[in-house]
Amino acid sequence: MDWLDQINWNEDGLVPAIAQDHQTGRILMMAWMNREALALTAAENRAIYWSRSRGKLWRKGEESGHVQHLHELRLDCDADVVVLMVEQIGGIACHTGRESCFYRVFDDGDWKTVEPVLKDPHAIYAEHKHD
Amino acid sequence: MDWLDQINWNEDGLVPAIAQDHQTGRILMMAWMNREALALTAAENRAIYWSRSRGKLWRKGEESGHVQHLHELRLDCDADVVVLMVEQIGGIACHTGRESCFYRVFDDGDWKTVEPVLKDPHAIYAEHKHD
Repeated sequence: MDWLDQINWNEDGLVPAIAQDHQTGRILMMAWMNREALALTAAENRAIYWSRSRGKLWRKGEESGHVQHLHELRLDCDADVVVLMVEQIGGIACHTGRESCFYRVFDDGDWKTVEPVLKDPHAIYAEHKHD
Repeated sequence: MDWLDQINWNEDGLVPAIAQDHQTGRILMMAWMNREALALTAAENRAIYWSRSRGKLWRKGEESGHVQHLHELRLDCDADVVVLMVEQIGGIACHTGRESCFYRVFDDGDWKTVEPVLKDPHAIYAEHKHD
C-alpha cells in the first residue's frame, strides 16, 4: 500500500509511534510499529504496536484490557514518526498502572515520580508483567 | 551525573525526545538526544538535540530563531523516551514553516496535508534547509 511505502522505516523496519489522548492532549506513551502493525492499526482503528522485547505484534490492551481506540493518525515531515490520537480505555496506558508512562519529572537534578498508580499492576495483569 | 545514568540510551547512545507545546499540548516534533544534548537541555532550559543527519549538536532555533524554551522534562517508565514541555518561540517548530511537524493526517488511504505553512522556509533559513 502506497501510504505505507511513504514511511521512512528505520534499519529495523520500525517507526516510533506516539500515543496521545485525543481529548486532553496528554502524551500517554511511545512505542514502535513495523509495517504490519501500522497497517493493522489503521485497519482496525486501535493501536497495535511491535514489541521489540517480545519480537511480536502487541495489540495494546490484549492482556490489560487497556485498548487504545484510534481517532486520528498523523505523520511528520520526515515521515519517520507517527502520532496516534487515541481514546485510552480504562484511563491507564502504562504497565505500572498509571495514566501515562511519563510520570517522572526532572527536578533538582533527579527524576521525581509525580503521578499516582491508579490500579495495582498485579490486578491488571494476571500473568504478564508487560502489556 | 546520576540522572543521566538512569536513561536507557539506545545502541547509538541516543534517546527519542518529544517536544510538546506546554500550553496547548500540541505535539510539535520528535528528535533525538545524546547524553550531552540532554545535559545541555537541562542546564540551559532550551531544547538541544543531536542531529543524526549532521552528526552534531543541534541547538533548536540556532538558525531559524525558533528556540524551544523548556518548561518541564519528563521520563517514561522504561527510561528510554523523554518528553519536553516547551514554549515554541515564533510558533513554528517544523522546518517546512508549519507549527508542528505532524501536519499530515491519514485519510482515505493516504496522507493528507491539513495545516498551512505559516512562514516560507526560505524566509526562515538564510542558508540551510534544516534547522
